[in-house]
Amino acid sequence: MRYTPEMHDIAHPSHVEGHFESSESVRDVVIGLSDGLTVPFALAAGLSGAVSNSHIIVLAGLAEIAAGSIAMGLGGYLAARGDAEHYASELAREQDEVITRPDDEAEEIYEIFAQYSVPRAAAAPVLAALQQNHPAYVDFMMRFELGLEKPASNRAHRSALTIASSYIAGGLVPLLPYMFVGAAVLPNTTTALGFSVIITVLALALFGALKGRLLGTGAIRSGLQTALIGGAAAAAAYTLARLLNSHT
Amino acid sequence: MRYTPEMHDIAHPSHVEGHFESSESVRDVVIGLSDGLTVPFALAAGLSGAVSNSHIIVLAGLAEIAAGSIAMGLGGYLAARGDAEHYASELAREQDEVITRPDDEAEEIYEIFAQYSVPRAAAAPVLAALQQNHPAYVDFMMRFELGLEKPASNRAHRSALTIASSYIAGGLVPLLPYMFVGAAVLPNTTTALGFSVIITVLALALFGALKGRLLGTGAIRSGLQTALIGGAAAAAAYTLARLLNSHT
Repeated sequence: MRYTPEMHDIAHPSHVEGHFESSESVRDVVIGLSDGLTVPFALAAGLSGAVSNSHIIVLAGLAEIAAGSIAMGLGGYLAARGDAEHYASELAREQDEVITRPDDEAEEIYEIFAQYSVPRAAAAPVLAALQQNHPAYVDFMMRFELGLEKPASNRAHRSALTIASSYIAGGLVPLLPYMFVGAAVLPNTTTALGFSVIITVLALALFGALKGRLLGTGAIRSGLQTALIGGAAAAAAYTLARLLNSHT
Repeated sequence: MRYTPEMHDIAHPSHVEGHFESSESVRDVVIGLSDGLTVPFALAAGLSGAVSNSHIIVLAGLAEIAAGSIAMGLGGYLAARGDAEHYASELAREQDEVITRPDDEAEEIYEIFAQYSVPRAAAAPVLAALQQNHPAYVDFMMRFELGLEKPASNRAHRSALTIASSYIAGGLVPLLPYMFVGAAVLPNTTTALGFSVIITVLALALFGALKGRLLGTGAIRSGLQTALIGGAAAAAAYTLARLLNSHT
């Protein structure tokens, strides 16, 4: 399901109070596991509909895990670094503006409050208090004018590693049964597909339920939804691969 | 690279002014294209390192596109619907609280301002103005206490379709050359891989450059980064598949 605004609540469960690094890690695990459990699962299921060689399915699954974990991890790293740079450049600009363009900044404060029908006279004491304390003034503008929050330091590296590891861990679950076909524990890819569906749907439901508890959206509903997404993706990939294969 | 906080700027380029539906669509296209261009590309490249049958590569690529587009589209749909429900339930709670618990709400306003060293006396006129206008009071709490913005109506359906379509469009680009191996235009999967790398890296660079212009992070830098992520993912998948294949 990739990163969604909803996940903001995992990272900031207590809203205004600020920044919890552990919760950001939880969010990264959720992002990585969501996709890791879903896409390699569906790919393997899809190929099972067309290819009887379990070796190719495992190979494709591992190639997908390598590709997906790097795309998510490196993408997450660059995005987090970009966020940090964006924050730093906006911070420098605001720090400059509260000194060099005090009237413009004051006008911006009035405009923020005007959106909520707060007249200039009522906003003036707040402005005066902020002008007494430049760091607080800058923080206020960063959050209320620009909607930016200070990124945790070193967030980029940790975020990339957490997302990529979670993607790999999630992706290996659906592939495990196919690995045992080569070792003659399971007779064929169809049996492996059956086991893969069972363990992955259970893992998706469990993971979805935990995510639902964290988000407060309800464990059962979230568990069912997460299993549904994975199941639908796998069913579509399987059907597509079967159709394509029967036409060639 | 999935959805990142950085992308918030695409959806809200003018920050406080509000909500632009067209920008949210742009964000959805960016999310879909980012992954669509990267992961099927890397998967196909990876399989080229181990499998000489272009039919299997196309099949795996299409299965991945089906799986990925559904996982992203359906995931995006459920997430957007969850956001809308979350917003509605918090809105109802705030609407109730400004009437039934006016003192607690007032205290919350004081606490928000206290974080920026604004004394109670200075915040009092703002509070009084908000208390005169309950809809504005509720809006203020939604945004500044809870950090929530009103989701566009019907956002969930459109978002799901836009993300999934963009993923499919992006994913077909790297697969095209492999489709022409069967039609005897290209001699083998190695040649197809070469063409796939050329057109996909160009597409990633162009897409990254456009994204960089939209975000204001610089077209050249963003173009190089986007091409780098895709290239790294493809190289890793290719290397992994070759190594695994030589051991079996």
